[in-house]
Amino acid sequence: MSEEKENIQFELTDELIQQVEQLIEVRKDKELKKLLDEFHYADIAEILDELNLEEAVYIIKLLDSETTSEILMELDEDNREKVLRNLSSKEIAEEIEELDTDDAADIISELPEERQQEVISHIEDEEHKAEIRELLAYDEDTAGGLMAKELVKVYETWTVAGCMRRIRGQAKEVTRVHSIYVVNKKNKLIGRLSLKDLIVAKSDQKISEIYIPSFDYVNVHDDVEDVAKVMAKYDLEAIPVVDENMILLGRITIDDIVDVMKEEADKDYQLAAGITGDVEADDTIWELTRARLPWLLIGMFGGIGAASIISGFSDAMLKFPVLLMFIPLIQATAGNVGVQSSAIIVQGLANDSIDGSLLNRLLKEFLLGLVNGLAIALIVLLISHFAFNTTYLESLTICVALISVIIMAALIGTFIPIFLDKRGIDAAVATGPFITTSNDVFGILLYFVIAKFILGF
Amino acid sequence: MSEEKENIQFELTDELIQQVEQLIEVRKDKELKKLLDEFHYADIAEILDELNLEEAVYIIKLLDSETTSEILMELDEDNREKVLRNLSSKEIAEEIEELDTDDAADIISELPEERQQEVISHIEDEEHKAEIRELLAYDEDTAGGLMAKELVKVYETWTVAGCMRRIRGQAKEVTRVHSIYVVNKKNKLIGRLSLKDLIVAKSDQKISEIYIPSFDYVNVHDDVEDVAKVMAKYDLEAIPVVDENMILLGRITIDDIVDVMKEEADKDYQLAAGITGDVEADDTIWELTRARLPWLLIGMFGGIGAASIISGFSDAMLKFPVLLMFIPLIQATAGNVGVQSSAIIVQGLANDSIDGSLLNRLLKEFLLGLVNGLAIALIVLLISHFAFNTTYLESLTICVALISVIIMAALIGTFIPIFLDKRGIDAAVATGPFITTSNDVFGILLYFVIAKFILGF
Repeated sequence: MSEEKENIQFELTDELIQQVEQLIEVRKDKELKKLLDEFHYADIAEILDELNLEEAVYIIKLLDSETTSEILMELDEDNREKVLRNLSSKEIAEEIEELDTDDAADIISELPEERQQEVISHIEDEEHKAEIRELLAYDEDTAGGLMAKELVKVYETWTVAGCMRRIRGQAKEVTRVHSIYVVNKKNKLIGRLSLKDLIVAKSDQKISEIYIPSFDYVNVHDDVEDVAKVMAKYDLEAIPVVDENMILLGRITIDDIVDVMKEEADKDYQLAAGITGDVEADDTIWELTRARLPWLLIGMFGGIGAASIISGFSDAMLKFPVLLMFIPLIQATAGNVGVQSSAIIVQGLANDSIDGSLLNRLLKEFLLGLVNGLAIALIVLLISHFAFNTTYLESLTICVALISVIIMAALIGTFIPIFLDKRGIDAAVATGPFITTSNDVFGILLYFVIAKFILGF
Repeated sequence: MSEEKENIQFELTDELIQQVEQLIEVRKDKELKKLLDEFHYADIAEILDELNLEEAVYIIKLLDSETTSEILMELDEDNREKVLRNLSSKEIAEEIEELDTDDAADIISELPEERQQEVISHIEDEEHKAEIRELLAYDEDTAGGLMAKELVKVYETWTVAGCMRRIRGQAKEVTRVHSIYVVNKKNKLIGRLSLKDLIVAKSDQKISEIYIPSFDYVNVHDDVEDVAKVMAKYDLEAIPVVDENMILLGRITIDDIVDVMKEEADKDYQLAAGITGDVEADDTIWELTRARLPWLLIGMFGGIGAASIISGFSDAMLKFPVLLMFIPLIQATAGNVGVQSSAIIVQGLANDSIDGSLLNRLLKEFLLGLVNGLAIALIVLLISHFAFNTTYLESLTICVALISVIIMAALIGTFIPIFLDKRGIDAAVATGPFITTSNDVFGILLYFVIAKFILGF
């Protein structure tokens, strides 16, 4: 038995890509197959993402569908779409036959409506076909949209020995056996067992004597984010999915949840940076513009708003030109404080760790703003006095404005995400340019109002 | 057998907390135990996080250590520290005995140096003690710091039947059996098996005939982030950890990786928002100030820098006051574009999806900046002309400056994270206030330089 080990440090080198491209060009199928056989399907997918479409399709058609179906799942979504467009419905159906139902349904749901039925009609395994149809009916953001139909299920009336015999058959279909689900004769989920429990038990015992009657489960219509929270909180590696009558419908495994968590984190990160839609650095300029321009426009209107405010105070501008120099400071501080406050709240909401009353939360932010504001105002006071020769009243204006603006930004940054969350809107949209812009505008307005009050122009 | 099911919708109500507090007050231990027995340890931890220290310690001392050890693991880090300070070294050792080695080492490493040895000396199980000592020696950011010693290991010379018999013993120690690791007589990892493979095999076969010789593994000194990437990429639920000679040392399971990923995502999100250190909304004002003030100071110095620049152009200010009104617009746009560009790069770096030359990447950002800049400049041109009565040259100045500043911010936002990454510095620090501030300052400078050039002051 050869000692081939998968090297985790798989490196996608230019040499490797060139080697693959050359083998494709001269149609050395056997050598190409031999080369690619060394790699994990996730690595082959990385190679394919670097090739042009024609070459990628060539490799997909060359390798056996057991491998290529997994490669397809790992490809960049854009590339997968292009490759699938170059495969016939029958060819896609062959790939689908190899996949677990959850992955199969995911791939089919990405196809254009009219092709979906055509591909499904080419699936030969009737049970697989029916299960995929069932999964396609669920919303992709629900437990039903994420679950797989593959699971190991035993009836409470079976014996351990009979059970071992029978699950051998079921287990072959299931990539990983996390839990064995115990059902009654009506298919109602009543408990669970691990393979370990089964191995440790005596072979003539009945399942009803050894199963564990307490178990976690999710409803088929539960939101995937809630499923992720439950699985992370209770350290679960798989969770059964049931309907309202506790009938066992499928199971969700932790690797799918890892993907959901990653997507969620990426989305929130992008929202905080003012980017919508799932874009990557390698997307086209057009896609990136669509994701970025809307947020820049929000910022632009904020800037225009600030211009109007300054214009409205244009008399004062001529009397106290030093005030204008500190507009960028006021604006930057307001923006930074607002983003800090909102980010902490958004994260707290995501982790369900925001409790206590809104009033207490705002009071705390008020105090926090006061502490930070005093610290910054003190430094600015010294610098403005010595470096910019501001008068006593001008310095006072700048410091009072800084403290007020910091407190205001902290309160707005705290209030808006909590408000959105209570209205059922994703609080993460309240971070980034949205908060920054509103704080910019309010900050400048507050600055001038305070200046008017203190300097009396 | 009772049909108690764990309800995933565990809700932490004020009534429940009050009920627990009352039972503690009147010392109704039996009732309290009965009440808490209904809940999962992760739920009990949530309850304890809401109680005061005295009450939390009371419950920890009341329940059996099998449960309390798991509760301790789930507590907020701050609360766990306080609870542990109220337990004797012997009591902590009793909790430690119940935990898997990885969790045990984590708890001990959180204790003050001098208590660590004391607690370890109280651990009665000599093997457990030695294993924990071993784990404590590894850096917590490495595979060694994350792995557990509990695993199921078989020798290639065993038969399937003998193997089943022997792993029954080992399996009892291991919460979940993901993979069975196959070693040669020198304890060198040579392959793997799943329980499923074992069940499906014939009982008189030798392990050497049925084991799978290809496997993923990580080195004990590998960075945990790399381990997370490998496990996510290859959809692994557990990975063996080896030393340089392929000797099997431990294993890492996906639930630990889920925690690592969550921490990483939270940290990057906070960095992007200008917050350092792992703070939460419920931390003290002092902790939050320490996390937030440094970034505000960066922004403050940027604001002072901007003030100096404006001051340097004070002659122009009096001739073209309309220019000053548009400073907030220039600043906000520069900040927003910079954050967008850097966030996409930081995310791309984290996902290893940044390839191609730096020059191509900068060229792309240049074009992207040009497209976005033209769109925004056109709108601003119309608004400034009609609403602010700017002259032809003033409008030209504002538009050219906007386009230039957007391109500059996009280039800086792209360049800095890539540069930091190449130097081995976490690129995520380059997002948030850092990028915003530098773009603010450079943006305003560029604005005035362009104005000087076009308007000729």
